[in-house]
Amino acid sequence: MSIIVLGTVALDTVKTPFGKRKELLGGSAAHFSMSARLFTKVNLIAIVGNDFPKKHITFLNSQRLNLSSLVVNDGKTFRWEGEYRGDLNSALTLNTQLGVLLAFKPQISETQRRIENIFLANVDPDIQEHLLVKMHSPKLVGLDSMNYWINTKRKKLIKLLKHIDIYVANDQEARDLSGESNLIKAAKGLSAFGPRMVLIKKGEHGVLFYTKNGFIFSLPAYPVEKVIDPTGAGDTFAGGFMGYLAKAGKINSLTIKKALAYGTVAASFNVEDFGLFRTSKLTRLDLDRRLIKFKDCFSF
Amino acid sequence: MSIIVLGTVALDTVKTPFGKRKELLGGSAAHFSMSARLFTKVNLIAIVGNDFPKKHITFLNSQRLNLSSLVVNDGKTFRWEGEYRGDLNSALTLNTQLGVLLAFKPQISETQRRIENIFLANVDPDIQEHLLVKMHSPKLVGLDSMNYWINTKRKKLIKLLKHIDIYVANDQEARDLSGESNLIKAAKGLSAFGPRMVLIKKGEHGVLFYTKNGFIFSLPAYPVEKVIDPTGAGDTFAGGFMGYLAKAGKINSLTIKKALAYGTVAASFNVEDFGLFRTSKLTRLDLDRRLIKFKDCFSF
Repeated sequence: MSIIVLGTVALDTVKTPFGKRKELLGGSAAHFSMSARLFTKVNLIAIVGNDFPKKHITFLNSQRLNLSSLVVNDGKTFRWEGEYRGDLNSALTLNTQLGVLLAFKPQISETQRRIENIFLANVDPDIQEHLLVKMHSPKLVGLDSMNYWINTKRKKLIKLLKHIDIYVANDQEARDLSGESNLIKAAKGLSAFGPRMVLIKKGEHGVLFYTKNGFIFSLPAYPVEKVIDPTGAGDTFAGGFMGYLAKAGKINSLTIKKALAYGTVAASFNVEDFGLFRTSKLTRLDLDRRLIKFKDCFSF
Repeated sequence: MSIIVLGTVALDTVKTPFGKRKELLGGSAAHFSMSARLFTKVNLIAIVGNDFPKKHITFLNSQRLNLSSLVVNDGKTFRWEGEYRGDLNSALTLNTQLGVLLAFKPQISETQRRIENIFLANVDPDIQEHLLVKMHSPKLVGLDSMNYWINTKRKKLIKLLKHIDIYVANDQEARDLSGESNLIKAAKGLSAFGPRMVLIKKGEHGVLFYTKNGFIFSLPAYPVEKVIDPTGAGDTFAGGFMGYLAKAGKINSLTIKKALAYGTVAASFNVEDFGLFRTSKLTRLDLDRRLIKFKDCFSF
Protein backbone atom coordinates (compact mmCIF):
# COMPACT_ATOMS: atom_id res chain seq x y z
CA MET A 1 0.00 0.00 0.00
CA SER A 2 1.42 3.36 -1.00
CA ILE A 3 1.92 6.26 1.36
CA ILE A 4 1.57 10.03 1.25
CA VAL A 5 4.04 12.21 3.09
CA LEU A 6 3.41 15.90 3.55
CA GLY A 7 6.32 17.96 4.82
CA THR A 8 9.22 20.12 3.81
CA VAL A 9 11.81 19.86 1.10
CA ALA A 10 14.51 22.22 2.22
CA LEU A 11 18.01 23.52 1.74
CA ASP A 12 19.90 22.82 4.97
CA THR A 13 23.14 24.40 6.09
CA VAL A 14 24.59 22.28 8.86
CA LYS A 15 27.63 22.55 11.10
CA THR A 16 28.71 19.61 13.26
CA PRO A 17 32.05 18.72 14.90
CA PHE A 18 32.78 16.90 11.60
CA GLY A 19 32.46 19.93 9.32
CA LYS A 20 30.06 22.33 7.68
CA ARG A 21 27.90 21.70 4.60
CA LYS A 22 25.95 24.42 2.80
CA GLU A 23 22.50 24.14 1.20
CA LEU A 24 22.21 20.38 1.38
CA LEU A 25 19.00 18.82 0.15
CA GLY A 26 16.96 18.15 3.29
CA GLY A 27 13.60 18.72 4.94
CA SER A 28 11.21 16.42 6.80
CA ALA A 29 9.50 14.96 3.71
CA ALA A 30 12.80 14.36 1.92
CA HIS A 31 14.34 12.49 4.87
CA PHE A 32 11.13 10.52 5.43
CA SER A 33 11.04 9.46 1.78
CA MET A 34 14.56 8.02 1.79
CA SER A 35 13.57 5.23 4.19
CA ALA A 36 9.86 4.88 3.36
CA ARG A 37 10.70 4.26 -0.34
CA LEU A 38 12.43 1.01 0.66
CA PHE A 39 9.02 -0.40 1.61
CA THR A 40 6.38 1.23 -0.53
CA LYS A 41 5.59 3.84 -3.19
CA VAL A 42 6.00 7.29 -1.66
CA ASN A 43 3.95 10.29 -2.77
CA LEU A 44 5.86 13.38 -1.70
CA ILE A 45 3.75 16.47 -1.04
CA ALA A 46 5.82 19.62 -0.58
CA ILE A 47 6.72 22.99 -2.03
CA VAL A 48 10.00 24.51 -3.18
CA GLY A 49 10.93 27.87 -4.69
CA ASN A 50 12.12 28.60 -8.21
CA ASP A 51 15.65 28.79 -6.79
CA PHE A 52 15.54 25.06 -6.04
CA PRO A 53 18.48 23.42 -7.85
CA LYS A 54 17.44 21.23 -10.80
CA LYS A 55 19.92 18.57 -9.71
CA HIS A 56 17.84 18.00 -6.57
CA ILE A 57 14.69 17.43 -8.62
CA THR A 58 16.66 15.02 -10.82
CA PHE A 59 17.92 13.29 -7.70
CA LEU A 60 14.46 12.95 -6.13
CA ASN A 61 13.12 11.58 -9.41
CA SER A 62 15.90 9.02 -9.42
CA GLN A 63 14.63 7.75 -6.07
CA ARG A 64 11.38 6.70 -7.76
CA LEU A 65 9.17 8.92 -5.64
CA ASN A 66 5.86 10.21 -6.97
CA LEU A 67 6.62 13.93 -7.27
CA SER A 68 3.40 14.93 -9.05
CA SER A 69 2.41 17.04 -6.02
CA LEU A 70 5.81 18.61 -5.39
CA VAL A 71 5.02 22.22 -6.26
CA VAL A 72 7.59 24.69 -7.57
CA ASN A 73 6.44 28.24 -6.81
CA ASP A 74 7.86 31.68 -7.42
CA GLY A 75 9.93 32.58 -4.40
CA LYS A 76 12.62 31.13 -2.18
CA THR A 77 12.92 27.51 -1.06
CA PHE A 78 12.62 26.90 2.70
CA ARG A 79 16.08 27.15 4.28
CA TRP A 80 17.28 25.99 7.69
CA GLU A 81 20.67 26.58 9.25
CA GLY A 82 21.75 24.77 12.39
CA GLU A 83 24.67 23.64 14.45
CA TYR A 84 25.36 20.61 16.64
CA ARG A 85 27.91 20.61 19.43
CA GLY A 86 29.21 18.14 22.01
CA ASP A 87 27.24 14.90 21.97
CA LEU A 88 25.16 16.01 18.92
CA ASN A 89 21.92 15.34 20.74
CA SER A 90 20.26 18.66 20.00
CA ALA A 91 20.52 21.24 17.25
CA LEU A 92 20.98 24.94 17.75
CA THR A 93 18.91 26.68 15.07
CA LEU A 94 20.86 29.62 13.67
CA ASN A 95 18.51 30.72 10.91
CA THR A 96 15.16 29.78 9.37
CA GLN A 97 13.78 31.25 6.15
CA LEU A 98 10.29 29.96 5.40
CA GLY A 99 10.07 31.38 1.86
CA VAL A 100 7.41 29.66 -0.25
CA LEU A 101 6.31 27.56 2.76
CA LEU A 102 4.42 30.61 4.06
CA ALA A 103 1.74 30.37 1.38
CA PHE A 104 1.76 26.57 0.95
CA LYS A 105 -1.63 24.97 0.36
CA PRO A 106 -1.02 21.36 -0.64
CA GLN A 107 -2.89 20.19 -3.75
CA ILE A 108 -3.13 16.52 -4.60
CA SER A 109 -4.67 14.42 -7.34
CA GLU A 110 -7.88 12.46 -7.08
CA THR A 111 -5.84 9.26 -7.07
CA GLN A 112 -3.69 10.51 -4.22
CA ARG A 113 -6.79 11.40 -2.19
CA ARG A 114 -7.60 7.70 -2.05
CA ILE A 115 -4.26 6.72 -0.48
CA GLU A 116 -4.86 5.20 2.96
CA ASN A 117 -1.47 5.68 4.65
CA ILE A 118 -0.64 9.28 5.44
CA PHE A 119 2.24 10.90 7.25
CA LEU A 120 1.98 14.56 8.16
CA ALA A 121 5.61 15.44 8.81
CA ASN A 122 6.54 18.59 10.64
CA VAL A 123 4.98 21.67 9.01
CA ASP A 124 2.43 24.25 10.16
CA PRO A 125 -0.61 22.41 11.62
CA ASP A 126 -2.84 24.47 9.31
CA ILE A 127 -1.05 22.97 6.31
CA GLN A 128 -1.32 19.48 7.84
CA GLU A 129 -5.06 19.95 8.32
CA HIS A 130 -5.42 21.33 4.81
CA LEU A 131 -4.13 18.04 3.43
CA LEU A 132 -5.82 15.71 5.89
CA VAL A 133 -9.35 16.96 5.14
CA LYS A 134 -8.78 16.19 1.47
CA MET A 135 -8.16 12.49 2.11
CA HIS A 136 -11.04 10.15 1.19
CA SER A 137 -10.30 7.11 3.33
CA PRO A 138 -7.44 7.58 5.79
CA LYS A 139 -6.60 4.26 7.44
CA LEU A 140 -3.31 5.02 9.19
CA VAL A 141 -2.44 8.66 9.85
CA GLY A 142 0.81 9.67 11.55
CA LEU A 143 1.68 13.21 12.56
CA ASP A 144 4.91 14.84 13.68
CA SER A 145 5.21 18.41 14.88
CA MET A 146 7.74 20.56 16.73
CA ASN A 147 8.03 22.83 19.77
CA TYR A 148 7.45 25.94 17.69
CA TRP A 149 3.91 24.77 16.78
CA ILE A 150 3.28 23.39 20.27
CA ASN A 151 3.93 26.89 21.57
CA THR A 152 2.27 28.99 18.87
CA LYS A 153 -0.59 26.79 17.56
CA ARG A 154 -1.28 24.54 20.51
CA LYS A 155 -5.08 24.53 20.16
CA LYS A 156 -5.01 23.80 16.45
CA LEU A 157 -2.50 21.00 17.01
CA ILE A 158 -4.59 19.42 19.77
CA LYS A 159 -7.71 19.68 17.59
CA LEU A 160 -5.84 17.97 14.76
CA LEU A 161 -4.71 15.13 17.06
CA LYS A 162 -8.32 13.93 17.32
CA HIS A 163 -8.02 12.68 13.73
CA ILE A 164 -4.59 11.09 14.06
CA ASP A 165 -3.74 7.43 14.70
CA ILE A 166 -0.07 7.84 15.65
CA TYR A 167 1.38 10.96 17.16
CA VAL A 168 5.15 11.06 16.74
CA ALA A 169 7.10 13.35 19.08
CA ASN A 170 10.53 13.65 20.58
CA ASP A 171 10.81 13.41 24.37
CA GLN A 172 10.89 17.17 24.93
CA GLU A 173 7.86 17.80 22.71
CA ALA A 174 5.99 14.98 24.44
CA ARG A 175 6.70 16.52 27.84
CA ASP A 176 5.80 20.04 26.68
CA LEU A 177 2.49 19.15 25.05
CA SER A 178 1.36 16.77 27.82
CA GLY A 179 2.73 18.69 30.81
CA GLU A 180 4.06 15.39 32.24
CA SER A 181 7.75 14.71 32.91
CA ASN A 182 7.45 10.91 33.11
CA LEU A 183 7.36 9.72 29.49
CA ILE A 184 4.76 7.00 30.03
CA LYS A 185 2.45 9.51 31.68
CA ALA A 186 3.25 11.93 28.86
CA ALA A 187 2.32 9.29 26.26
CA LYS A 188 -0.93 8.56 28.12
CA GLY A 189 -1.75 12.26 28.25
CA LEU A 190 -1.06 12.71 24.54
CA SER A 191 -3.14 9.67 23.70
CA ALA A 192 -6.04 11.24 25.61
CA PHE A 193 -6.04 14.01 22.95
CA GLY A 194 -7.05 11.40 20.38
CA PRO A 195 -4.23 9.28 18.91
CA ARG A 196 -4.57 5.59 19.73
CA MET A 197 -0.77 5.31 19.49
CA VAL A 198 2.05 7.58 20.62
CA LEU A 199 5.65 7.19 19.48
CA ILE A 200 8.23 9.06 21.53
CA LYS A 201 11.66 9.40 19.92
CA LYS A 202 14.53 9.75 22.39
CA GLY A 203 17.44 10.20 19.97
CA GLU A 204 20.45 8.15 21.08
CA HIS A 205 18.26 6.58 23.78
CA GLY A 206 15.85 4.85 21.42
CA VAL A 207 12.06 4.96 21.39
CA LEU A 208 9.04 4.44 23.58
CA PHE A 209 5.75 3.38 21.98
CA TYR A 210 2.42 3.56 23.75
CA THR A 211 -0.95 2.22 22.67
CA LYS A 212 -4.28 3.27 24.13
CA ASN A 213 -5.15 -0.35 24.90
CA GLY A 214 -2.21 -0.60 27.24
CA PHE A 215 0.77 -1.92 25.30
CA ILE A 216 4.14 -0.33 25.84
CA PHE A 217 7.07 -1.10 23.57
CA SER A 218 10.56 0.18 24.05
CA LEU A 219 13.66 -0.20 21.92
CA PRO A 220 17.19 1.12 22.41
CA ALA A 221 18.87 3.04 19.59
CA TYR A 222 21.20 1.18 17.26
CA PRO A 223 24.68 1.86 18.68
CA VAL A 224 26.46 4.27 16.32
CA GLU A 225 30.00 5.21 17.18
CA LYS A 226 30.50 8.06 14.74
CA VAL A 227 27.51 10.38 14.50
CA ILE A 228 28.35 12.84 11.70
CA ASP A 229 25.05 14.69 11.31
CA PRO A 230 21.79 13.81 13.08
CA THR A 231 19.65 16.17 10.97
CA GLY A 232 16.59 14.29 9.76
CA ALA A 233 17.16 11.20 11.91
CA GLY A 234 13.65 11.49 13.37
CA ASP A 235 12.08 11.81 9.92
CA THR A 236 14.14 8.91 8.60
CA PHE A 237 12.93 6.91 11.61
CA ALA A 238 9.33 7.84 10.83
CA GLY A 239 9.82 6.87 7.18
CA GLY A 240 11.10 3.40 8.05
CA PHE A 241 8.40 2.96 10.68
CA MET A 242 5.43 4.15 8.59
CA GLY A 243 6.80 2.60 5.40
CA TYR A 244 7.01 -0.82 7.03
CA LEU A 245 3.50 -0.54 8.50
CA ALA A 246 2.07 0.61 5.16
CA LYS A 247 3.60 -2.43 3.47
CA ALA A 248 2.57 -4.83 6.27
CA GLY A 249 -1.02 -3.59 5.96
CA LYS A 250 -1.88 -4.48 9.53
CA ILE A 251 -1.24 -3.12 13.01
CA ASN A 252 -0.43 -5.54 15.81
CA SER A 253 2.26 -6.01 18.47
CA LEU A 254 4.58 -7.78 16.07
CA THR A 255 4.26 -5.38 13.13
CA ILE A 256 4.65 -2.37 15.44
CA LYS A 257 7.85 -3.76 17.01
CA LYS A 258 9.29 -4.65 13.61
CA ALA A 259 8.34 -1.20 12.30
CA LEU A 260 10.07 0.43 15.30
CA ALA A 261 13.17 -1.67 14.61
CA TYR A 262 13.21 -0.74 10.91
CA GLY A 263 12.80 2.92 11.85
CA THR A 264 15.70 2.59 14.28
CA VAL A 265 18.13 1.07 11.82
CA ALA A 266 17.09 3.52 9.07
CA ALA A 267 17.83 6.43 11.44
CA SER A 268 21.18 4.88 12.35
CA PHE A 269 22.25 5.08 8.69
CA ASN A 270 21.02 8.67 8.41
CA VAL A 271 23.32 9.97 11.17
CA GLU A 272 26.42 8.39 9.62
CA ASP A 273 26.79 11.15 7.00
CA PHE A 274 25.58 14.65 6.17
CA GLY A 275 22.11 15.26 4.75
CA LEU A 276 20.80 12.47 2.55
CA PHE A 277 24.27 11.28 1.54
CA ARG A 278 23.97 7.89 3.22
CA THR A 279 20.22 7.26 3.07
CA SER A 280 19.96 8.08 -0.64
CA LYS A 281 22.16 5.04 -1.31
CA LEU A 282 20.36 2.84 1.21
CA THR A 283 18.91 -0.49 0.07
CA ARG A 284 16.42 -2.81 1.70
CA LEU A 285 19.27 -5.31 2.03
CA ASP A 286 21.33 -2.78 4.05
CA LEU A 287 18.36 -2.33 6.37
CA ASP A 288 17.76 -6.07 6.76
CA ARG A 289 21.41 -6.80 7.48
CA ARG A 290 21.60 -4.14 10.16
CA LEU A 291 18.26 -5.26 11.58
CA ILE A 292 19.83 -8.64 12.35
CA LYS A 293 22.76 -6.98 14.12
CA PHE A 294 20.35 -4.72 15.98
CA LYS A 295 18.23 -7.63 17.20
CA ASP A 296 21.37 -9.28 18.47
CA CYS A 297 22.01 -6.28 20.75
CA PHE A 298 19.02 -7.14 22.93
CA SER A 299 17.40 -10.45 21.98
CA PHE A 300 17.88 -13.41 24.28
CA MET B 1 28.65 -19.60 43.26
CA SER B 2 28.48 -17.06 46.07
CA ILE B 3 29.39 -13.42 45.74
CA ILE B 4 31.13 -10.79 47.82
CA VAL B 5 29.91 -7.22 47.76
CA LEU B 6 31.95 -4.44 49.30
CA GLY B 7 30.20 -1.11 49.70
CA THR B 8 28.25 1.08 52.03
CA VAL B 9 25.45 0.39 54.47
CA ALA B 10 24.01 3.81 55.11
CA LEU B 11 21.23 5.85 56.64
CA ASP B 12 19.60 7.77 53.79
CA THR B 13 17.37 10.81 54.09
CA VAL B 14 15.56 11.26 50.81
CA LYS B 15 13.13 13.82 49.46
CA THR B 16 11.28 13.19 46.20
CA PRO B 17 8.06 14.67 44.75
CA PHE B 18 6.32 11.81 46.59
CA GLY B 19 7.49 12.74 50.09
CA LYS B 20 10.42 12.72 52.47
CA ARG B 21 11.80 9.77 54.44
CA LYS B 22 14.42 10.10 57.18
CA GLU B 23 17.30 7.73 57.95
CA LEU B 24 16.16 4.89 55.75
CA LEU B 25 18.37 1.83 55.55
CA GLY B 26 20.34 2.26 52.33
CA GLY B 27 23.83 2.29 50.87
CA SER B 28 25.37 0.67 47.79
CA ALA B 29 26.02 -2.75 49.36
CA ALA B 30 22.56 -2.91 50.93
CA HIS B 31 20.78 -2.13 47.65
CA PHE B 32 23.04 -4.53 45.74
CA SER B 33 22.30 -7.34 48.19
CA MET B 34 18.52 -7.08 47.83
CA SER B 35 18.64 -8.25 44.20
CA ALA B 36 21.82 -10.38 44.25
CA ARG B 37 20.40 -12.53 47.11
CA LEU B 38 17.69 -13.76 44.72
CA PHE B 39 20.38 -15.61 42.76
CA THR B 40 23.18 -16.55 45.13
CA LYS B 41 24.59 -16.32 48.66
CA VAL B 42 25.70 -12.74 49.29
CA ASN B 43 28.60 -11.87 51.60
CA LEU B 44 28.13 -8.24 52.60
CA ILE B 45 31.32 -6.36 53.46
CA ALA B 46 30.66 -2.97 55.02
CA ILE B 47 30.96 -0.87 58.16
CA VAL B 48 28.37 0.89 60.33
CA GLY B 49 28.64 2.96 63.52
CA ASN B 50 27.41 2.06 66.98
CA ASP B 51 24.42 4.30 66.32
CA PHE B 52 23.19 1.87 63.67
CA PRO B 53 19.66 0.77 64.62
CA LYS B 54 19.43 -2.87 65.80
CA LYS B 55 16.28 -3.33 63.74
CA HIS B 56 18.31 -2.85 60.57
CA ILE B 57 20.76 -5.60 61.61
CA THR B 58 17.79 -7.83 62.36
CA PHE B 59 16.34 -6.98 58.98
CA LEU B 60 19.56 -7.70 57.07
CA ASN B 61 19.89 -11.00 58.91
CA SER B 62 16.36 -11.89 57.88
CA GLN B 63 17.44 -11.51 54.25
CA ARG B 64 19.82 -14.46 54.70
CA LEU B 65 22.93 -12.47 53.88
CA ASN B 66 26.31 -13.47 55.28
CA LEU B 67 26.99 -10.55 57.63
CA SER B 68 30.12 -11.98 59.29
CA SER B 69 32.18 -9.13 57.77
CA LEU B 70 29.74 -6.34 58.50
CA VAL B 71 31.74 -4.39 61.08
CA VAL B 72 30.18 -2.26 63.80
CA ASN B 73 32.67 0.39 64.94
CA ASP B 74 32.58 3.19 67.48
CA GLY B 75 31.38 6.27 65.67
CA LYS B 76 28.62 7.39 63.37
CA THR B 77 27.10 5.40 60.53
CA PHE B 78 27.57 6.87 57.04
CA ARG B 79 24.69 9.20 56.25
CA TRP B 80 23.54 10.63 52.93
CA GLU B 81 20.83 13.19 52.35
CA GLY B 82 19.52 13.95 48.88
CA GLU B 83 16.65 15.33 46.90
CA TYR B 84 15.12 14.49 43.52
CA ARG B 85 13.10 16.98 41.48
CA GLY B 86 11.29 17.00 38.16
CA ASP B 87 11.85 13.80 36.23
CA LEU B 88 13.83 12.20 39.12
CA ASN B 89 16.76 11.46 36.85
CA SER B 90 19.46 12.92 39.07
CA ALA B 91 19.88 13.46 42.79
CA LEU B 92 20.90 16.69 44.42
CA THR B 93 23.17 15.76 47.35
CA LEU B 94 22.32 17.95 50.34
CA ASN B 95 24.57 16.40 52.95
CA THR B 96 27.12 13.60 53.33
CA GLN B 97 28.58 12.44 56.65
CA LEU B 98 31.19 9.74 56.16
CA GLY B 99 31.52 8.82 59.86
CA VAL B 100 33.07 5.36 60.36
CA LEU B 101 33.62 5.00 56.60
CA LEU B 102 36.65 7.29 56.94
CA ALA B 103 38.72 4.63 58.71
CA PHE B 104 37.23 1.56 57.05
CA LYS B 105 39.66 -1.25 56.26
CA PRO B 106 37.60 -4.29 55.24
CA GLN B 107 38.51 -7.55 56.97
CA ILE B 108 37.23 -10.86 55.66
CA SER B 109 37.51 -14.49 56.61
CA GLU B 110 39.77 -17.06 54.96
CA THR B 111 36.67 -18.67 53.45
CA GLN B 112 35.50 -15.37 52.01
CA ARG B 113 38.92 -14.77 50.45
CA ARG B 114 38.28 -17.78 48.23
CA ILE B 115 35.02 -16.43 46.77
CA GLU B 116 35.41 -15.92 43.03
CA ASN B 117 32.68 -13.36 42.29
CA ILE B 118 33.37 -9.92 43.67
CA PHE B 119 31.56 -6.62 43.38
CA LEU B 120 33.30 -3.50 44.56
CA ALA B 121 30.37 -1.12 44.94
CA ASN B 122 30.91 2.61 45.22
CA VAL B 123 33.34 3.44 48.07
CA ASP B 124 36.79 5.04 48.20
CA PRO B 125 39.04 3.28 45.62
CA ASP B 126 41.61 2.74 48.41
CA ILE B 127 39.05 0.67 50.31
CA GLN B 128 38.15 -1.21 47.12
CA GLU B 129 41.82 -2.01 46.52
CA HIS B 130 42.27 -3.02 50.15
CA LEU B 131 39.67 -5.74 49.68
CA LEU B 132 40.62 -6.81 46.18
CA VAL B 133 44.24 -7.61 47.05
CA LYS B 134 43.01 -9.99 49.76
CA MET B 135 41.12 -12.16 47.29
CA HIS B 136 42.74 -15.49 46.45
CA SER B 137 41.18 -16.34 43.09
CA PRO B 138 39.01 -13.59 41.66
CA LYS B 139 37.19 -14.84 38.58
CA LEU B 140 34.64 -12.11 37.93
CA VAL B 141 35.29 -8.68 39.46
CA GLY B 142 32.91 -5.77 38.98
CA LEU B 143 33.57 -2.24 40.14
CA ASP B 144 31.35 0.82 40.48
CA SER B 145 32.57 4.27 41.43
CA MET B 146 31.29 7.83 41.36
CA ASN B 147 32.22 11.30 40.10
CA TYR B 148 33.71 12.29 43.43
CA TRP B 149 36.39 9.57 43.15
CA ILE B 150 36.86 10.19 39.42
CA ASN B 151 37.74 13.77 40.30
CA THR B 152 39.74 13.24 43.50
CA LYS B 153 41.38 9.81 43.05
CA ARG B 154 41.49 9.45 39.29
CA LYS B 155 44.95 7.82 39.13
CA LYS B 156 44.15 5.29 41.83
CA LEU B 157 40.86 4.43 40.16
CA ILE B 158 42.52 3.95 36.76
CA LYS B 159 45.21 1.78 38.34
CA LEU B 160 42.53 -0.32 40.00
CA LEU B 161 40.68 -0.79 36.68
CA LYS B 162 43.59 -2.93 35.41
CA HIS B 163 42.40 -5.68 37.76
CA ILE B 164 38.69 -5.40 37.03
CA ASP B 165 36.60 -7.48 34.60
CA ILE B 166 33.50 -5.28 34.46
CA TYR B 167 33.54 -1.55 35.07
CA VAL B 168 30.06 -0.28 35.91
CA ALA B 169 29.41 3.45 35.42
CA ASN B 170 26.55 5.79 34.74
CA ASP B 171 26.65 7.77 31.50
CA GLN B 172 28.07 10.92 33.08
CA GLU B 173 30.82 9.04 34.91
CA ALA B 174 31.68 7.15 31.73
CA ARG B 175 32.00 10.42 29.82
CA ASP B 176 34.03 12.09 32.57
CA LEU B 177 36.53 9.28 33.06
CA SER B 178 37.00 8.58 29.33
CA GLY B 179 36.82 12.14 28.03
CA GLU B 180 34.52 10.95 25.22
CA SER B 181 30.96 12.20 24.73
CA ASN B 182 29.80 9.35 22.47
CA LEU B 183 29.01 6.46 24.82
CA ILE B 184 30.42 3.71 22.60
CA LYS B 185 33.70 5.62 22.31
CA ALA B 186 33.55 6.21 26.07
CA ALA B 187 33.10 2.47 26.69
CA LYS B 188 36.02 1.70 24.37
CA GLY B 189 38.19 4.23 26.16
CA LEU B 190 37.29 2.83 29.59
CA SER B 191 37.95 -0.70 28.39
CA ALA B 192 41.44 0.41 27.32
CA PHE B 193 42.16 1.06 31.02
CA GLY B 194 41.81 -2.68 31.64
CA PRO B 195 38.24 -4.00 32.04
CA ARG B 196 37.25 -6.42 29.32
CA MET B 197 33.63 -5.36 29.80
CA VAL B 198 32.04 -1.97 30.43
CA LEU B 199 28.45 -1.52 31.59
CA ILE B 200 27.03 1.98 31.19
CA LYS B 201 23.83 2.67 33.14
CA LYS B 202 21.62 5.36 31.59
CA GLY B 203 18.83 5.50 34.19
CA GLU B 204 15.42 5.71 32.53
CA HIS B 205 17.13 5.15 29.16
CA GLY B 206 18.43 1.67 29.91
CA VAL B 207 21.94 0.28 29.56
CA LEU B 208 24.78 -0.06 27.09
CA PHE B 209 27.19 -2.98 27.46
CA TYR B 210 30.51 -3.15 25.68
CA THR B 211 32.98 -6.01 25.48
CA LYS B 212 36.61 -5.70 24.41
CA ASN B 213 36.13 -8.32 21.72
CA GLY B 214 33.61 -6.12 19.97
CA PHE B 215 30.15 -7.04 21.24
CA ILE B 216 27.72 -4.28 22.05
CA PHE B 217 24.47 -4.98 23.86
CA SER B 218 21.81 -2.42 24.58
CA LEU B 219 18.58 -2.70 26.51
CA PRO B 220 15.90 -0.11 27.22
CA ALA B 221 14.75 0.45 30.81
CA TYR B 222 11.63 -1.32 32.02
CA PRO B 223 8.86 1.27 31.61
CA VAL B 224 7.87 2.48 35.09
CA GLU B 225 5.09 5.01 35.30
CA LYS B 226 5.43 5.99 38.93
CA VAL B 227 9.02 6.48 40.04
CA ILE B 228 8.86 7.12 43.79
CA ASP B 229 12.55 7.06 44.74
CA PRO B 230 15.40 6.12 42.39
CA THR B 231 18.03 5.94 45.18
CA GLY B 232 19.97 2.70 44.83
CA ALA B 233 18.54 1.78 41.42
CA GLY B 234 22.03 1.44 39.93
CA ASP B 235 23.19 -0.78 42.80
CA THR B 236 20.04 -2.88 42.57
CA PHE B 237 20.74 -3.22 38.85
CA ALA B 238 24.31 -4.32 39.57
CA GLY B 239 23.06 -6.84 42.14
CA GLY B 240 20.67 -8.47 39.69
CA PHE B 241 23.29 -8.42 36.95
CA MET B 242 26.22 -9.77 39.00
CA GLY B 243 24.00 -12.15 40.97
CA TYR B 244 22.70 -13.75 37.79
CA LEU B 245 26.20 -14.08 36.29
CA ALA B 246 27.55 -15.57 39.54
CA LYS B 247 24.81 -18.17 39.48
CA ALA B 248 25.16 -18.85 35.73
CA GLY B 249 28.88 -19.45 36.25
CA LYS B 250 29.76 -18.51 32.68
CA ILE B 251 30.08 -15.38 30.59
CA ASN B 252 28.78 -15.36 27.04
CA SER B 253 26.43 -13.25 24.89
CA LEU B 254 23.34 -15.00 26.21
CA THR B 255 24.21 -14.90 29.92
CA ILE B 256 25.26 -11.25 29.66
CA LYS B 257 21.99 -10.22 27.98
CA LYS B 258 19.93 -12.20 30.50
CA ALA B 259 21.96 -10.67 33.33
CA LEU B 260 21.33 -7.18 31.94
CA ALA B 261 17.63 -7.94 31.73
CA TYR B 262 17.49 -9.23 35.33
CA GLY B 263 19.37 -6.14 36.47
CA THR B 264 16.88 -3.96 34.60
CA VAL B 265 13.78 -5.51 36.13
CA ALA B 266 15.35 -5.56 39.62
CA ALA B 267 16.04 -1.83 39.30
CA SER B 268 12.48 -1.22 38.11
CA PHE B 269 11.16 -2.64 41.39
CA ASN B 270 13.61 -0.56 43.41
CA VAL B 271 12.33 2.77 42.08
CA GLU B 272 8.71 1.93 42.90
CA ASP B 273 9.11 2.73 46.61
CA PHE B 274 11.45 4.45 49.05
CA GLY B 275 14.71 2.83 50.15
CA LEU B 276 14.58 -0.96 50.34
CA PHE B 277 10.82 -1.08 50.94
CA ARG B 278 10.01 -2.84 47.68
CA THR B 279 13.19 -4.80 47.01
CA SER B 280 13.32 -6.30 50.51
CA LYS B 281 10.06 -8.11 49.67
CA LEU B 282 11.16 -9.09 46.20
CA THR B 283 11.10 -12.76 45.17
CA ARG B 284 12.69 -14.55 42.27
CA LEU B 285 9.17 -15.16 40.97
CA ASP B 286 8.50 -11.40 40.90
CA LEU B 287 11.64 -10.94 38.85
CA ASP B 288 10.83 -13.75 36.44
CA ARG B 289 7.28 -12.53 35.89
CA ARG B 290 8.44 -9.01 35.10
CA LEU B 291 11.23 -10.34 32.91
CA ILE B 292 8.60 -11.87 30.63
CA LYS B 293 6.74 -8.55 30.42
CA PHE B 294 10.03 -6.76 29.80
CA LYS B 295 11.02 -9.08 26.95
CA ASP B 296 7.65 -8.45 25.38
CA CYS B 297 8.47 -4.72 25.19
CA PHE B 298 11.15 -5.31 22.55
CA SER B 299 11.26 -8.92 21.34
CA PHE B 300 9.95 -9.70 17.88
